[in-house]
Amino acid sequence: MSSEFRVIGKPQPKMDGFEKVTGRANFASDFSLPGMLHLKILRSPYPHARIVSVDASKALALPGVKAVFTAKDIAANPRWNPFYPILTDVARFVGDDIAVVAAVDEETATEALALIKVDYQQLPFVLDPEEALKPSAPKLYPEGNLFGGHPAVVSRGDVAKGFAEADLVYEARYKTPILQHASNEGRVAIAQWEGGRLTIWDSTQAPFEVQKAVAKALKIPQSKVHVMCEFMGGGFGDKSSPGRQSVVAAIVARKLGRPVRIELDREENYLGGLHRYATVIDLKYGVKKDGTLTAIQAKVVADGGAYAVYGYAALGVLQIPMDVYRCPNMKGEGYTVNTNNPATGPMRCVGHPQGTFAQEVHMDVIAQKLGMDPVELRLKNYARLEDGDQFNKIPYSSNGMEECIKRGAETFQWKAKMQQAAAQTGPVKKGYGIAVHACNHGSMMPGMPLSGALRINADGTVNVFTGATELGCGQKTTMAMIAAEELGVLLENVFVTAADTDTTTDTGSTSGSRQTITGGTGVKMAAADAKNQLLDVAAAELKVDKKDLSIRDSMVYVAGSDKGVPLDQIAAKMPGGVISGRGYMKVPPNYFSHGFAAQFAEVEVDTRNGHVKVLKIVAAHDLGRVINPLSAENQIEGGVIQGMAYGLTEEQIYDKATGICVNPNHLNYKLPTIKDAPEIVSIMVESVDKYGPYGAKGIGEPPYSPPAPAIANAIYNAIGVRFTELPITNRAILMGLKAAKG
Amino acid sequence: MSSEFRVIGKPQPKMDGFEKVTGRANFASDFSLPGMLHLKILRSPYPHARIVSVDASKALALPGVKAVFTAKDIAANPRWNPFYPILTDVARFVGDDIAVVAAVDEETATEALALIKVDYQQLPFVLDPEEALKPSAPKLYPEGNLFGGHPAVVSRGDVAKGFAEADLVYEARYKTPILQHASNEGRVAIAQWEGGRLTIWDSTQAPFEVQKAVAKALKIPQSKVHVMCEFMGGGFGDKSSPGRQSVVAAIVARKLGRPVRIELDREENYLGGLHRYATVIDLKYGVKKDGTLTAIQAKVVADGGAYAVYGYAALGVLQIPMDVYRCPNMKGEGYTVNTNNPATGPMRCVGHPQGTFAQEVHMDVIAQKLGMDPVELRLKNYARLEDGDQFNKIPYSSNGMEECIKRGAETFQWKAKMQQAAAQTGPVKKGYGIAVHACNHGSMMPGMPLSGALRINADGTVNVFTGATELGCGQKTTMAMIAAEELGVLLENVFVTAADTDTTTDTGSTSGSRQTITGGTGVKMAAADAKNQLLDVAAAELKVDKKDLSIRDSMVYVAGSDKGVPLDQIAAKMPGGVISGRGYMKVPPNYFSHGFAAQFAEVEVDTRNGHVKVLKIVAAHDLGRVINPLSAENQIEGGVIQGMAYGLTEEQIYDKATGICVNPNHLNYKLPTIKDAPEIVSIMVESVDKYGPYGAKGIGEPPYSPPAPAIANAIYNAIGVRFTELPITNRAILMGLKAAKG
Repeated sequence: MSSEFRVIGKPQPKMDGFEKVTGRANFASDFSLPGMLHLKILRSPYPHARIVSVDASKALALPGVKAVFTAKDIAANPRWNPFYPILTDVARFVGDDIAVVAAVDEETATEALALIKVDYQQLPFVLDPEEALKPSAPKLYPEGNLFGGHPAVVSRGDVAKGFAEADLVYEARYKTPILQHASNEGRVAIAQWEGGRLTIWDSTQAPFEVQKAVAKALKIPQSKVHVMCEFMGGGFGDKSSPGRQSVVAAIVARKLGRPVRIELDREENYLGGLHRYATVIDLKYGVKKDGTLTAIQAKVVADGGAYAVYGYAALGVLQIPMDVYRCPNMKGEGYTVNTNNPATGPMRCVGHPQGTFAQEVHMDVIAQKLGMDPVELRLKNYARLEDGDQFNKIPYSSNGMEECIKRGAETFQWKAKMQQAAAQTGPVKKGYGIAVHACNHGSMMPGMPLSGALRINADGTVNVFTGATELGCGQKTTMAMIAAEELGVLLENVFVTAADTDTTTDTGSTSGSRQTITGGTGVKMAAADAKNQLLDVAAAELKVDKKDLSIRDSMVYVAGSDKGVPLDQIAAKMPGGVISGRGYMKVPPNYFSHGFAAQFAEVEVDTRNGHVKVLKIVAAHDLGRVINPLSAENQIEGGVIQGMAYGLTEEQIYDKATGICVNPNHLNYKLPTIKDAPEIVSIMVESVDKYGPYGAKGIGEPPYSPPAPAIANAIYNAIGVRFTELPITNRAILMGLKAAKG
Repeated sequence: MSSEFRVIGKPQPKMDGFEKVTGRANFASDFSLPGMLHLKILRSPYPHARIVSVDASKALALPGVKAVFTAKDIAANPRWNPFYPILTDVARFVGDDIAVVAAVDEETATEALALIKVDYQQLPFVLDPEEALKPSAPKLYPEGNLFGGHPAVVSRGDVAKGFAEADLVYEARYKTPILQHASNEGRVAIAQWEGGRLTIWDSTQAPFEVQKAVAKALKIPQSKVHVMCEFMGGGFGDKSSPGRQSVVAAIVARKLGRPVRIELDREENYLGGLHRYATVIDLKYGVKKDGTLTAIQAKVVADGGAYAVYGYAALGVLQIPMDVYRCPNMKGEGYTVNTNNPATGPMRCVGHPQGTFAQEVHMDVIAQKLGMDPVELRLKNYARLEDGDQFNKIPYSSNGMEECIKRGAETFQWKAKMQQAAAQTGPVKKGYGIAVHACNHGSMMPGMPLSGALRINADGTVNVFTGATELGCGQKTTMAMIAAEELGVLLENVFVTAADTDTTTDTGSTSGSRQTITGGTGVKMAAADAKNQLLDVAAAELKVDKKDLSIRDSMVYVAGSDKGVPLDQIAAKMPGGVISGRGYMKVPPNYFSHGFAAQFAEVEVDTRNGHVKVLKIVAAHDLGRVINPLSAENQIEGGVIQGMAYGLTEEQIYDKATGICVNPNHLNYKLPTIKDAPEIVSIMVESVDKYGPYGAKGIGEPPYSPPAPAIANAIYNAIGVRFTELPITNRAILMGLKAAKG
């Protein structure tokens, strides 16, 4: 870290840590308003059924029940999302939202659910996305099950020519399951109308998207919708777009003229939230003997479920084979398919974890077939700075892949370990694997907003107002550090308000590893704007030239003198009592930054019970300039642990005969605990970037994708069995070992 | 109203009216937070006593009581106001704050008060401000009872010379009582610490002053104090400075780590709030036979009570004799005196109602003695535009006094009525009186902040953020109208957030008839700033010159075409998703505007029971450009009714032997009801002003001062008895009639 900085680059504990660990932080679900009603959703027991009629008379007769609404009652409201009804008159998965009950407490609302009589006309259903593509399959929508009516196709060069030039062509199929974000805090919304205006306390990564969606659904101006999310217990993408519960709460609150609260319980979150979409990925790669890739062909079938909130699901997966390695010839076909599985969306990226698992295992097999070190195969093929981002067809703004691979391998002692691995006896086998990852972070589509605001108070202290949500990753602290650095004030004098549509400005959803770049740039711009105004005040007050002034550690210095004037003395003279700083821009085209990563896994496989113990992960990440090393390390560690569970245990399982989820809870879904966590060594590669503030890049998603393939490759290294389907459970290991024995 | 405007000048109902009349608005006292404790203050039963010791052991033993704190426990906190302790170790009036109890509910806290044993050392006390000035009087402070150590003296010319030139010199003494603001909503504060930051839901006219005071008292940065007051049930000056309850709530919440709530009950508001200070006013005026004033001499003794929060109490009274009439020779002496009466401060102005009562009765006597029409006497002497503001020694920015007097007299049919008055028989006598009033509104001391902020949303709707508090006078609607006018958007698309230190900017306390001028100017500046940015977007989007663009009714027009582009289409293209507009300035010297008023009263006096019925008030007010005629009329009507009660019934009475207030409730204090309201005819004189937005001036305080003297003069006109002391109760009328009979 360069010594030119006074605040950034120095580890800082999270500003809101104390409140959270002492239980004092008020999350959305902690709010209680006078006269508040509680909502519960009646969920479909069938994966596919038409609602013929709903008889709520018995429910309404239950003391404490105030109302029951169905799709019919809210039909006057336009759809807030083109693919996703608020309540539905056709159930498309087990758990789909049929009706909402409002009652004086949650218990009464829950009791009322059982009293609602629904006449369902059951319809044939389909759970398998490949089955769903067949002409004979039951259709979820009149236009058919293939989202958009045709596959997404991406290509460059000529794959036929590429395969012809190859010495080795290897083809395989990979599968990934339906996953659950399993945030500590589930989906919750409290809606209150007051003064003709709606306030929503939400748990959302995108307060401004909720504001817009609700305004649209209720046909009211955005100025009359106030959304807040000060504290949040995790999102991982599930809350990166507006949720049904926020809209239904707003509608019911307006209809009944009382505040309402809706909180999905754990099972409902498993059923009714978004999900990581399952995929079937067919890869066919051509290579020369020296390892040079000549052709990449990929076909992705993505299970979009009943409501594919992000329509380009399959395309997100294709980005990985398209982008990570340089290869002149590439062709990809992506099918996003509606099925009677639950709604889908992003989860720690849109598609990259699925694509990375498939490709990095595929590359490992190719290395093995060529008799080449897997590290060398990656070094040979990774897309260089000069190659640029193949998928988005733009230059890289920085590229630290080589340093990630090399420093990671050195720290991991890759070469030494690969030699050891040869000779193992006993039932517990050690193995070593590598996976790399590259992706465009920030997902900064041209036209997206990028902004920040701050205020200098009369005592020289600072309030930062960022549209970023504090998901628990340290966003507030990062913004405070950027503001303190840019203004020259002490960090302890900076307070951050986040994710409040009244106080803060839209800087995009807090997802896509985006906010250090978008929100951070906005805060930096706002700080520069405020500082400029403050220096005008200081220049007038001290009767010196503005250009001779500087601010550091909350003191104002005149060039040539080392005696500073305390900032509060200057701030007391500000016109208007405060100075407001603002910064905003629309993201220009090609404003992408890129993250790069190489992770190395060391595992122990117990061949007697199939248990895989991950001993160590070395995670080398190029994240540009590091703003807060402590939270960056936290992000890497969190991503690695969650990514490990993606590899080994997590899966939401649906009964094929009924479409019912059989494990909608943390225990049976098999979330990892801290006892499962391996030793994690984080390596931060600071390839100072062209776009982010001070050269920073995102680190939200990258740590998640590599562990699963690195572990799968390490398992192969340990026991000589390839796994192409996730999760690699104990049972899968035992079955694999049995199959290998023949 | 000029047709150049599309929004302002057209009557608009209050934007928050519906929520208030339907009981849906959440005032500070409506908030309830999880784990919230309730505070009650132990109040002194003695007017003057030293606290020798406090034994809270029995109170602490009561189940549900969490803490008892005295001045000692919070001594580490510096005084937030130089004249006003948070809790005191010397009680200086009956009701002074000795200790605070925190308990799980208000009932328990109240019960605990009785269990606290205080050992008081009673001290001699003084209630009469003139007595308090004597050397032998008990001293409230070591430095003596005269606030500041010497009287305030104001003068111009040579009064001795003026009296020598006079044909008539008239001298008299006037007295006004201690009054209570009697806001519907009393003093209340809820304090919560979260994330290392303090949030206060307060009922305050000055959220930024509360923020500063609390930050100072608790030694924390302003960035960590968030004060909100979205709805408010009246202030009238009682809440124009930070209250003890806000600071004590913040301290206790921090000490106990839980949210706390304190709400003074009605009796506590009568005892523990601020009060209109009683005055003794000696006036001696010299006039020539033609009515020309030659000398004015005034002495004011103002009862500052135990804590004179506004030290310049007596000076505020002197402003009236100094300022309303032109007179070359003037001398005033003002004594602000501490007594063992309750704390004092502004109430619908600082001193003008007291001074106006005295002077306008004094002028009426002079007219009578000269045999001159009281209207003519005022017209002869009122300070003209060219005379300027004598008190502040600055030019008038506009002056509609003559129009007020003439239009008021004509509407009232003054001349015809004065002739009728001569011949009355029967026990019920009619009478007619006039009083005029002039004062500098906005009290915009140089250096005060003046600011506003707003935001244009992506759908073209607007949020205005004003530091002004909505006291119930329509401030929000006024700000919305100014923003809509300036931006060219439809009023229905504008929403206003008020008095929130996070969202809004400091634009001074909402008092002193200030906010239409200060807050309104700030909003106008912010709107102009935002519009300028929006036109940049529109120019780029429509590919035309910015100077050819105009906006009206939420449509953008290109010069030469009458086909507009809907604003939301342009707004959707804004960089950063939103546009923030800001405006702020420090008030420059001489940035005062002036209000003028003439009110005419018609009364009926029943000589059998002394009852005075006010039949009609014609209230002519110069308020500059009228932004919202409906709320301006409401302001005039409200002021007239409250001012009438100041004349006839309201008085907070203290027992001389014990210092105890004997009527601390609405019934015995004798607040007026709607049945007491006379017919009120409002006349608005629009002398377009130099400073306020579109030429607007303030109308908060002016309507209050004239009714009492106009009514007193009308009573004299009816029954021939002069009253020089307020209130003129039924009993006073009967005593006066008896004394007149001899």
